[in-house]
Amino acid sequence: MKTIAYLLIFLLCFSSKNIFSQNSDSLLISKIFSTALKDNGGFHALYDLCKHSGKRLSGSPLADTAVNRMAVWLKNWGADTVWLQECMVPHWVRGEKEEAKIISSSLKMSLSVPVCALGMSIGTPANGIKAEVIEVLGMGELKNLNPTDIKGKIIFYNGSMPPETIFTFNAYGHTVGQRWASAMEAARYGAIGVVVRSVASHIDSHPHTGSMGYNDTITKIPAVAISTQAAEILSASLKKDKNLKFWFKTSCQTLPDVLSHNVIADIKGSKYPNEVILIGGHLDAWDMAEGAHDDGAGVVHSMEVIRLFRTLGIKPERTIRVVLFMNEENGSRGAKAYAEWAKKSGEEHIAAIESDAGGFIPRGFTLDCSDAEKFYLRSKFSPVLSYFGVGDFSRDGGGADVGYLKDICPLISGLSPDSQRYFDYHHSEIDVYEEVNDRELEMGSAAVASFVYLLDKYGNGMKRNAREEE
Amino acid sequence: MKTIAYLLIFLLCFSSKNIFSQNSDSLLISKIFSTALKDNGGFHALYDLCKHSGKRLSGSPLADTAVNRMAVWLKNWGADTVWLQECMVPHWVRGEKEEAKIISSSLKMSLSVPVCALGMSIGTPANGIKAEVIEVLGMGELKNLNPTDIKGKIIFYNGSMPPETIFTFNAYGHTVGQRWASAMEAARYGAIGVVVRSVASHIDSHPHTGSMGYNDTITKIPAVAISTQAAEILSASLKKDKNLKFWFKTSCQTLPDVLSHNVIADIKGSKYPNEVILIGGHLDAWDMAEGAHDDGAGVVHSMEVIRLFRTLGIKPERTIRVVLFMNEENGSRGAKAYAEWAKKSGEEHIAAIESDAGGFIPRGFTLDCSDAEKFYLRSKFSPVLSYFGVGDFSRDGGGADVGYLKDICPLISGLSPDSQRYFDYHHSEIDVYEEVNDRELEMGSAAVASFVYLLDKYGNGMKRNAREEE
Repeated sequence: MKTIAYLLIFLLCFSSKNIFSQNSDSLLISKIFSTALKDNGGFHALYDLCKHSGKRLSGSPLADTAVNRMAVWLKNWGADTVWLQECMVPHWVRGEKEEAKIISSSLKMSLSVPVCALGMSIGTPANGIKAEVIEVLGMGELKNLNPTDIKGKIIFYNGSMPPETIFTFNAYGHTVGQRWASAMEAARYGAIGVVVRSVASHIDSHPHTGSMGYNDTITKIPAVAISTQAAEILSASLKKDKNLKFWFKTSCQTLPDVLSHNVIADIKGSKYPNEVILIGGHLDAWDMAEGAHDDGAGVVHSMEVIRLFRTLGIKPERTIRVVLFMNEENGSRGAKAYAEWAKKSGEEHIAAIESDAGGFIPRGFTLDCSDAEKFYLRSKFSPVLSYFGVGDFSRDGGGADVGYLKDICPLISGLSPDSQRYFDYHHSEIDVYEEVNDRELEMGSAAVASFVYLLDKYGNGMKRNAREEE
Repeated sequence: MKTIAYLLIFLLCFSSKNIFSQNSDSLLISKIFSTALKDNGGFHALYDLCKHSGKRLSGSPLADTAVNRMAVWLKNWGADTVWLQECMVPHWVRGEKEEAKIISSSLKMSLSVPVCALGMSIGTPANGIKAEVIEVLGMGELKNLNPTDIKGKIIFYNGSMPPETIFTFNAYGHTVGQRWASAMEAARYGAIGVVVRSVASHIDSHPHTGSMGYNDTITKIPAVAISTQAAEILSASLKKDKNLKFWFKTSCQTLPDVLSHNVIADIKGSKYPNEVILIGGHLDAWDMAEGAHDDGAGVVHSMEVIRLFRTLGIKPERTIRVVLFMNEENGSRGAKAYAEWAKKSGEEHIAAIESDAGGFIPRGFTLDCSDAEKFYLRSKFSPVLSYFGVGDFSRDGGGADVGYLKDICPLISGLSPDSQRYFDYHHSEIDVYEEVNDRELEMGSAAVASFVYLLDKYGNGMKRNAREEE
């Protein structure tokens, strides 16, 4: 009966006079896609971002370079205003290239293996640390160990992403906890360091970094990520020699906070300038490579809304705002600074969309909003966007940066590219420009611009209803 | 009103007693996807196919290797029967590596450029051919030229794939005509050779081959494909020196037809063994690389239906048949032989599905069938498969090999992976195993196995209805 009720609601929607002018919308959206695919403008911007400010971790000189260069692109693409919003950010530096070895006299083994410091970790003493290893598959196993066995050891977290999970972000969510809490939980029992299996979807030789946390009441111990391949070797070696030793050396450290910036660019709304549709990605990236998928793609997807609107002469009624957030990776200070400012700005945010899931072929958008809003978007926007292959609004979710706007914005959303390849690249040395396909990237930009176009024209579900009653 | 009518039909469908047991189906399909993603069996088979029988063009020893090795995989994966179906195939050989140069004395230019012979072309004389060049963007332009201007020249077809076309197979279809007819049309006006811009979605240095045809009443002249990058250079150079010369040398030739085989493997139906659900890809591949996407992926997608059914203990009521077709690329002799045999076999083909669009993330299936059949599949199968991201049944179309079954099979269908990257690789030296993502490949296998599972359980629209009336 529920099905029948929904169908009757559909019936009412589609037979009402509020039916979309789907023909003219489809034509315009078709132009958005054509323009993006033909002139490839975003792909050029991605090249600039990746090749001139590759390792743009918050607080680094390259992060400043990214801020300044992307501000110029936005201005050149025709934003009405571009400004830099201040925020203080953490300043963690990796130092020398990390080293690590598996050492076993009984196995006649002294094998160098690829590791990288986890973001925000302290470094080791100058000679590194060396100890026996205890392997666990997650926090649960750690807590079941005898604390006296842990003391003085290195804990090896070897939990892997479940391959059978189709949507890989869910698999990541399932696994990433051991990375974040690795050091603080192991230190609680007296461990002197931790090695964490890279959160990655393949067995290969690239360590994947990512943020980890400390608890101020517990001793800080150093943490590294190890490549999945080396994790397999370490695990197999431990089965043969449980007394083998692991040695690693890192020289990372956290320096005092420094001043950095979000980049904010607007096209002012012609009719409702006080109503804001926000689209953003994060400008900072881990220092392993170029942050091409994470989140160069999201930066470009966002910026191209301005380019595509200007190129096609689309004059929005509401204010379209691009925000390139600083510091998503290790602090979210940019998102917090923006949200704090937005709450006092006197503006009304009607939608905030984030792109931070890579430059792969887009499928649709995740939604974090009321059921009524979901119903509106799924029944009205999805059919139009589905024609272009980007109409899947079935998945819940928003985004790490726009999530801070949740209490002032009724519609939080995220671009949802196909997720199969994302964790091949994520936070590793292979996340480079050359691994982004220009057509897939531009399809994402076109998808975002099209969604923004529809939101501007029809509003979100709530806003639309209010206006119709006027 | 049409909308309302459709909704009422939906209403009737969903409230009828014939509603799918969607829970149990979703659980089973979920297992199919899990198994494919977890054990990666198809990816290992793809490795074998690509690395042991890479350049498996019809008639080559490597094509025989592919036939024999894949037959073993099918047997090992538990097919009830595996047999080789004879067919005579063309035997074209490329000969020595092709050479080509752009030569201009006024531009002080003698530039080697990457070309490859088009499939089935004759070769040049031993010293190659050298002539002035006339550039056209397609057949239309050729026909508008003065025939006396063409005589003795080389025609350069420089039409490119329209980048704004989202579904790249449509862009390919728009462009490929100039490749197929290039030589026969140019020879009609006295040209001595043709150079065709590679039908590819990017500007790069890889020539892409593909089949071309001759007309027995017109002189045969040699044809090569030139990389898109070199095509741009040739075109720009012609603007500066319209009298420049192009030289190319090929030694390809067509030898007498040879005996080859389709590989056919069945799981015999437990209840309706005479009703066949066919799934196939083509085993031959162009000799430029390994044919990993074209069509190693389709071979694996098809073979894995048997693997996944056996692994999960699925006992089909109908006969599930895998056909690895020989000679799709330059003659379709395998498809013709199978169709001829099938028409006399006394069996009833209820569906024939092809995978020949690469190992990229699947979106759904194309359909070539009656409107009633489409309605049945879109309303009944699509909702189940959409949960796994593979429920898009909106696109029309079938497949080159299964198309020959059209007059005996009510449902012709094709797996529809995302098309953005396909023509980066297609028929070129970069179509190798390393460019296939294992998760994307396995998602395709799972999609096909799931569709076959639903077809076996519920029949196609026509068959289902008949049975319900029993």
